[in-house]
Order: sequence, then C-alpha cells, then structure tokens
Amino acid sequence: MIPKFDVLTKEEVSQIHEKTMEILETVGVEFTYDPAIAIFKEWGQRIEGHRVYFQRSFVEEMVQKAPASFTLHARNPEKNVQCNHRDIIFTPSYGPPYIYEANGNRRYSNMNDYDNIVKLAGASTNIQATGGNVCEPNDVPDEIKHLKMIYSHIKNADKNFMGSAYGEMGAQDSIEMASMLFGGRDILKKNPALITLINSITPLKYDDRMLAAMMTYAAAGQVNLISSLVMSGSTGPATMAGTITLQNAEVLAGIVLTQCINPGAPVIYGSTSGPADMRTVSLSIGNAETALYTAASAQMARFYGVPSRGGGGLNDSKTVDAQAGYEAMMVLMSAAISGINYVLHAAGIMHYYTAFSFEKFVMDDEIAGMVLKYRKGYDFSDEMFALNDIKEVGPGGHFLYQASTLEKHRQELRMPDLSDRMGYEAWDADGRKDTNTRAKERWQKILAEYEVPHLDEALDKELCAFIERRSQELMK
Amino acid sequence: MIPKFDVLTKEEVSQIHEKTMEILETVGVEFTYDPAIAIFKEWGQRIEGHRVYFQRSFVEEMVQKAPASFTLHARNPEKNVQCNHRDIIFTPSYGPPYIYEANGNRRYSNMNDYDNIVKLAGASTNIQATGGNVCEPNDVPDEIKHLKMIYSHIKNADKNFMGSAYGEMGAQDSIEMASMLFGGRDILKKNPALITLINSITPLKYDDRMLAAMMTYAAAGQVNLISSLVMSGSTGPATMAGTITLQNAEVLAGIVLTQCINPGAPVIYGSTSGPADMRTVSLSIGNAETALYTAASAQMARFYGVPSRGGGGLNDSKTVDAQAGYEAMMVLMSAAISGINYVLHAAGIMHYYTAFSFEKFVMDDEIAGMVLKYRKGYDFSDEMFALNDIKEVGPGGHFLYQASTLEKHRQELRMPDLSDRMGYEAWDADGRKDTNTRAKERWQKILAEYEVPHLDEALDKELCAFIERRSQELMK
Repeated sequence: MIPKFDVLTKEEVSQIHEKTMEILETVGVEFTYDPAIAIFKEWGQRIEGHRVYFQRSFVEEMVQKAPASFTLHARNPEKNVQCNHRDIIFTPSYGPPYIYEANGNRRYSNMNDYDNIVKLAGASTNIQATGGNVCEPNDVPDEIKHLKMIYSHIKNADKNFMGSAYGEMGAQDSIEMASMLFGGRDILKKNPALITLINSITPLKYDDRMLAAMMTYAAAGQVNLISSLVMSGSTGPATMAGTITLQNAEVLAGIVLTQCINPGAPVIYGSTSGPADMRTVSLSIGNAETALYTAASAQMARFYGVPSRGGGGLNDSKTVDAQAGYEAMMVLMSAAISGINYVLHAAGIMHYYTAFSFEKFVMDDEIAGMVLKYRKGYDFSDEMFALNDIKEVGPGGHFLYQASTLEKHRQELRMPDLSDRMGYEAWDADGRKDTNTRAKERWQKILAEYEVPHLDEALDKELCAFIERRSQELMK
Repeated sequence: MIPKFDVLTKEEVSQIHEKTMEILETVGVEFTYDPAIAIFKEWGQRIEGHRVYFQRSFVEEMVQKAPASFTLHARNPEKNVQCNHRDIIFTPSYGPPYIYEANGNRRYSNMNDYDNIVKLAGASTNIQATGGNVCEPNDVPDEIKHLKMIYSHIKNADKNFMGSAYGEMGAQDSIEMASMLFGGRDILKKNPALITLINSITPLKYDDRMLAAMMTYAAAGQVNLISSLVMSGSTGPATMAGTITLQNAEVLAGIVLTQCINPGAPVIYGSTSGPADMRTVSLSIGNAETALYTAASAQMARFYGVPSRGGGGLNDSKTVDAQAGYEAMMVLMSAAISGINYVLHAAGIMHYYTAFSFEKFVMDDEIAGMVLKYRKGYDFSDEMFALNDIKEVGPGGHFLYQASTLEKHRQELRMPDLSDRMGYEAWDADGRKDTNTRAKERWQKILAEYEVPHLDEALDKELCAFIERRSQELMK
C-alpha cells in the first residue's frame, strides 16, 4: 500500500490543535439537550445556560479514551469492516430527497429507490458497506421511515449498515433490530454493528435530536460518526485555517461527550466542510477546498488517535457529466490517499448532497475501484521487476507472450467496469455512448442480476413483527 | 504549499535504481545513430553493434551533472517558467492528429486549429506555456510543418514554447527562429527557451531522428525532455515494478548522452508509461496505473536531481463525458501532488493521445485551476484562523458579514470558471447544459475575446522571411 499523504506539517497540526483548545476554552459549545449539560456538569466543566466551556486538559484526556481501531460487524461476518488508520470503507449517499434521472429529470426518491440503492451497494466489490439513509423514502410516513430503512439494509444485503439518528427513538429501534440480527444487546455492545451519523450545528452547537441519538448509541457501545460541516464564508470563516479549526472544535466536543458516557466507546472523527459559493451563498462540495478539508481531517483524526470520515463522490453537478466526474474524483482521491477510513457518499450523490443518481452510483463505483488500485500502489517483490523477461526481450521486441505478462497482468493491471477503451470506429458504431448512457445500462443490468442474500426466515418474521408493532405505536 | 506526496518509500526508490543499473549494465540500450555510438565509445563504454552496455559508475556520475533547476524563457519575460522541484508548468496536448467535436464527430486537425489551441493556451491563467505540436496541422506539407508551428507559438502568444523534434533539421530551424526572437545563439545558450520532447522506443532503444534532435539541442544548451512510454504488458512487462524500472533505464540512458555532449545541459526526466488494455492490447492512459507511474517518476527524478515530466489531462474517452472528467482529474492530480514539474498534455487531449477536443481543453483548464488550488494548501498565518470572528459569532449565527469573510474570501475560496453551481431550477431553466455544452460556449468566447500580444514588426518580417526561404529549400 502507498504511504499516507499528509497535507499538513506536524507544526500545522499543532497549530490547529492549539487554536481549537482556545475556542473550546473561551468560546465554548452549546448543547441544547439538558441530559448532555448534566453530564458535563458532573465532569466539572464550566456551564453557562446551555453553553459548555471546556478545560483543555479534560478534552485532551477524554479524547485519548476513544479507540484507534475497532471492527464494524456485518450480517455476513466475512463482510465485517475495519475502522482504523489503514483501511478504507466506502458507503453510498446519505440523505438525498431527490432522484436525478439520466435524462435530467428530477423526481422525489421513494422506498423502491432505497431498496435498489442498497442492492447496488450490496452487489459492488468496491463499496464495503451499504450505509444508511441512502435516499429519503418520501412515500413512507416520517414516523416509521427509520424502521423501513433498517429493514431494507438487513433484507437486501448482508454488509454492515448504519443506525438511525432520529433521536433516542430512532436509536433505540435501530439497536433493537440490530440486537435481533446479532444475537442480543450484550453481544452487540461487544461487537459494534451500528454506526450513526451525528452532525453538529455549525458554528459550535449540538441539538436535542442528535445528542439524544449520540448518547443512546454511546451507551450501547455502537459507533458515533461525529461530523461537522463548516461552510466557509457562511456558517464558518471564509479562511481555510479558520474552517478546519472550527470544525475540529465541534468534532472534539462531540467525541468528549461520548467518552464521558462510555469511556472507550467507538467514535469516528467526521468532516464534510466545504466552501460557500460567495455569489449565491449556497454550499459547494466538489472543489479543491473540500478536498483539502478532507485530507487535513484525516490527519487531525490520526493526531487524536481515532478513525476518520470524509470525502465521497462529491460534486455540484445536476447530471452525470464531466464535472460530476472530475469533482467526484478529486474529493474521493483526496480522501483515499490522505488516510480517511470511512467514506459516506462514496457513490451516487449529486448536487451538494441534494440528489441521488443511479448513473452516478456506477460511475462512482468505477472511481472507487480506481482509487483502491491507486492506494494499493506497487508490489516490489523481486519477481515483480521481471528482470528475466527484460533481459530475454532486450532492445526492440515486445512482452506480449513473456511469462511475467501471462502470469501477472490480471493482478497488476486493473480492468475497468464502466470506462470505455474502444477505438473511435467501434465507439461510433456502438452509438457514441457517453458515460451517462453506459452507466444507465450498467445499473439496470446489475439490479436485474442481483441475488438478494438469504435471510433466516424466523429472523425475518421476528423483524417484520417488530416493525409492525412499532409502526402501530408510532402511527397512532 | 502542501508537502509533496511520495508514493514510494526510500527503500523502493533504491530498489528501482539498483535494478535499473542491472539493466543498463547487462542488457544495455540500442542507439541506432552512429554519432551517438561514437560518443559513448569516446567515453569508454562497451559497445556491440549499436548496443551500449553502460558502466554503473559512469551513469551515476553523468546523471549528477544535469542541473536540478533552470529557467525556461518566454518572449514575455514575465512569463518565464521555472523547471525545478517546486513549481508546476502546464502545457497543452502534444501530437494529436484528430479533432473530436462537441457532437462526437471526428475530423483531421489543421493549422487553424493549431493557432486556436495556442491562443487558448495563451489566454489561460492556469496553463503557463503554449507547448508544442499541440495538434497535427494536417493541411501543411510535412517538410515545413515545424516552421509553421514554431511561428504560431511566437505569433499567437508570448509564453514559453517547445522546439521541433524532427531530427537535426527540425532542431536547427527551431534554434534559428528562437535565436531571432531572443537575440542570438549565445544568449539562447545561456538562457534556454526551447524544450523538446525526445521519446525512447521501448524497450531500450533510441532512433536516429530523436537522437539527432537531442544531440543538437543539448549542444545548443536547450532543454531535452527525455521521455519513455512503457506500455505495461506490451512494450514492457505487465508488472508495475518492471514497467517503472524499464522506463527508468531508458530515461537515464538518454540523460547520460546529453551530459556527454554538454555537461550541465538542462534535461527533464519524462514519463508517459501506462498499461496496455489486455483485451485489445491498445494503450490506456486514464487509469490508476498511469497515475502511479506518474507519481513514482516524480520521485525518481528527485532522486536523480532533475526536474520531471508526467501526467496531464489523460483519458481514454471519445467525448467530454464523466469518464473524460474523472480520468483526467486522477492523472493530473497525481502529477500535481507528487511533484511533477512539467506537464505535457495538461489540456485538450482525448482518447489515448489520438485526438484534441476544444471542449476538453477548457474542462482541463478548470481541472488545472482546481489542482493548483489544492497544491497551494492552507495559509496558517495567525490572522487566517479568524479567531476574533469565531469568538464574536459564538455558537449559532453566521459569518457572512464578518471582517475575515469580507477580506479573505476571494483569496481563500476559488471560484470556478466552467463548473456549474446553480440550483436545479436555474439549471433546468438554462437548458440543462452539461459540461460539454458549457465548454463549447466557453472556448468560443475565449477565442473571440483573445487579444494576440504585440510582436515587433521587424522581427515578424525577419521570421517570415526565414520561413519563406526555408520553405523553398525544403519543398524542392
């Protein structure tokens, strides 16, 4: 594997840490949820209303308790994934309410889309987990969306998936369903299977719903992915140094809370910061600044000894065009080489997080395969230099039938799934298909051929009965 | 600026060097040009026919004579560019015989295209030199193409450009024209202005035309960009370690020859290696392997103390679609972060070097702007942390009217030239334009607005008279 790419020097990491401590000590962070305030009071922090002023030593001490690595469990144990400073886990989009179709049309996403996205993630060899909230199932009542979503991940694939962040209720229901799947709450606590996206409200705030979910998951030993989205120039400073520091303060404050509740509870340091477009003050996510925030976040997380989340196939485009391609590649590549561990939005996301595209999903899947190959780097074991073949061929000639070519080309040279390497004549005769067109054919074929992994029937019934009962309670 | 990204460890660099020395000593390199053989004989190397077996100490000693940095001069001295281990120079496509149009049609390129590409490169703030052989002017007789091309660079822009590699004749004519422009051969020798692409013939061979050009430029103190394109699995081993080592042997052999002719003559270590697609045995250039060869080449060049060439907006696509975007970004980004210094094909190239696209040029220009911003990284001077504003805003609120936002957003947050950040409704109302469509509008606008920099009339006449005279001689 290639070495990690550090975009910051050690001194710059220290600078960010120092300024972060100054923010946490002198500005503090607002937690609107009283149970969170009660905990910080217990741990001796200065409180004014809902604002917590952190002691530096307390922050440093508590962050150290968070583990540097852990396993996220999957229904199929062969598909467990590792959260650490070495591996990378790609997951689909998170939260988009729209589907952008190949022809440029827009429509609301629904539960059928949700199932299909989980299936595509289940089928992919580059996407290691099926994520959560992969699109908004707009045809399902709000009260029971989380139940249907969790069930979709369990039913349609056997990879690791995410828990619901819909407050304490969403967390409890997620934990209950995961307990059925993994053999009870005690086993689940020892072997975390749920990971949940907890977002701060920038600047320097956490709300009730997120705090209640976070505290429930922390107590249950499940993984809190604590993320900050600082929008440079809008919800945060326009300066990149200010943005990364503000983000760092927010994420650390969240991590500290999880460690107060359950020291050693697994957490991930999350970043989704990006610039505001200063003409429109809308978020932009497919750009060099986002890619730099991503890379710096990986490094800050290493500094604090916790895994990191960042990056994705991020872009601002409305269609699967060249822009969608180059923006997604820049941000995903930056994440992959800087040592980001968990990637939300690795596939399918469009237009600053507002839409999902099936064509984009398979495009991003190709990009994911490319960056995984890039991360792998060179194999420099002696035989890989192929010196015997180089000597045998000598100047002039070719290597087409040499032993090393026949033996090694499959492992050394990646074949693309979606990208086109045809000559012009063949491409012309094939109807001059662009990536968008080929991608549509590809995801339809993958879905048509996908085999849903077998789910134990008794377990399936138990899950459905739980969903039925909870739905009746929640829809009252 | 961000630190450089090393994809190889120090030990791996040494391994490549050791195996390279073994190749140069035991397999040798074939030079078909007798004057080159005569030189190696003079320098005491073992020769068999046209094959030179290099002594390791000789190679190491001669490569050390090549300079680590030098200036490439431009007609407008403000546009001189630096070849070293810090800066990056982007130049247009090199050599494509076709134009791919926005609608997917293919046609032969001509002299008018050539002029337009030079103008687009002249107008760009991201492309620092206008390159050479930017497309094949198929409507100009072969004998005088080089004259027309050099004149186009002088006339249509005032940036640095390349010399012709059409043997000794191409080199002499290029040097003559550059001498007129820069005030004579002596001045030119002290202040190199021409850089020329010299390609090895893989495996392990150099031909007459390239050697004659290289030797002429080396003697004149101009820059030889010595490049190897190893096609993994076809003209080289399918293994990545074998490919990068074979490439290294070829490039070093070329560098050694330049230093025999003129110790201290400026050279650049060049890489364009990429995999063969093993289904069709055609070259592929938009992929992770090419990106890894690029990054490793930057590192090998640093090891030998010479500037490097690699990367570009490389891709295998036939149209400016998502694939063109993600492939170009991967390779250009890899070049930019690994410390490549001179980038041929940074803008406009399509379909493994066989075609130019005007739409692709402006797309690549945007990518170049993005990677330049990424390379710049963070400014961590104290005021850039914007702590006063973070304190003033506190939890909740926004930064839209804070002092740091108003003062710093322009320098900190890059605004795109081509990428679209509109909302869906605005994009829909604007005709749902994809990147390809917007790019066509953009290059036509740039060309319409471009002002050709003034060229001294007497000099212009002198150049035209030379071209006229040489054309009559060459067309006889």
